[in-house]
Amino acid sequence: MRTIGIDPGTARMGWGVVEKQGSDVRLVEFGVLTTPAGMPQAERLHHLYTGLVQILQRYQPQAGAVEELFFGKNVNTAITVGQARGVVLLALHQAGLSIHEYKPLVVKQALTGYGGADKRQMQEMVRITLGLSSIPRPDDAADALAIAICHAYTNQVG
Amino acid sequence: MRTIGIDPGTARMGWGVVEKQGSDVRLVEFGVLTTPAGMPQAERLHHLYTGLVQILQRYQPQAGAVEELFFGKNVNTAITVGQARGVVLLALHQAGLSIHEYKPLVVKQALTGYGGADKRQMQEMVRITLGLSSIPRPDDAADALAIAICHAYTNQVG
Repeated sequence: MRTIGIDPGTARMGWGVVEKQGSDVRLVEFGVLTTPAGMPQAERLHHLYTGLVQILQRYQPQAGAVEELFFGKNVNTAITVGQARGVVLLALHQAGLSIHEYKPLVVKQALTGYGGADKRQMQEMVRITLGLSSIPRPDDAADALAIAICHAYTNQVG
Repeated sequence: MRTIGIDPGTARMGWGVVEKQGSDVRLVEFGVLTTPAGMPQAERLHHLYTGLVQILQRYQPQAGAVEELFFGKNVNTAITVGQARGVVLLALHQAGLSIHEYKPLVVKQALTGYGGADKRQMQEMVRITLGLSSIPRPDDAADALAIAICHAYTNQVG
């Protein structure tokens, strides 16, 4: 089973595709979609949407995994990330993927066995799990891979 | 010039199309797109997106007007409305409309001349402006028409 994990954002959208074979999870590809700061919101969303559609066509994942959002403080950030998340969910649905949402705590527990794991520990577990020589960069891509791995571990199908 | 105003939401998305002819603003059509509560978010967003695409094709507005969001309290609401807003902006951009955002205060001032106008006063001004015998229902549609009228008044082109 092939899973795409996505870390939504308007300026930078991390994505990572992993494949589960038996109990192994291997890396397929990862990257980041970026949009320039001066670009109008609607154009940025369109840019991210078309970029994601191309990634889905190219790597053909069957499942999409996205983190459940929780923002303690900044409501404006919540709106902006929500907008990016909206077009992500739309693209995943239109491409026929099953869609799964995981709380940050669950992603941490799935990867490290510890809900209080910090960013560096998470990134190191992504590296080890996928057998990479270095941590995937940038952080957005490593976060997306963590969510994809979480789904690959959690989901029993395939 | 024909403008569509949109009041984004996942459960109910109000829309209203107005046309400016000289200094007159007349109603073209209004309505609400709804999605059932039990439907998964991604499917709801797809439903709203395809519904809006059809409305844009049918009524061919040149401009789209959306309220700038501000949420004082509920961050979860901000994320959900943000998601709906994301697919709205995407659909408007893809259809080639110019996109305009107005703060609630500006919409109130444009319609009533008074930034502190309440919901009922706003709805009454929508009714009078468009020469209707009764206030457009439901509220989501009346709100969408108010934003469309605001743009028609504010924008000097056409």
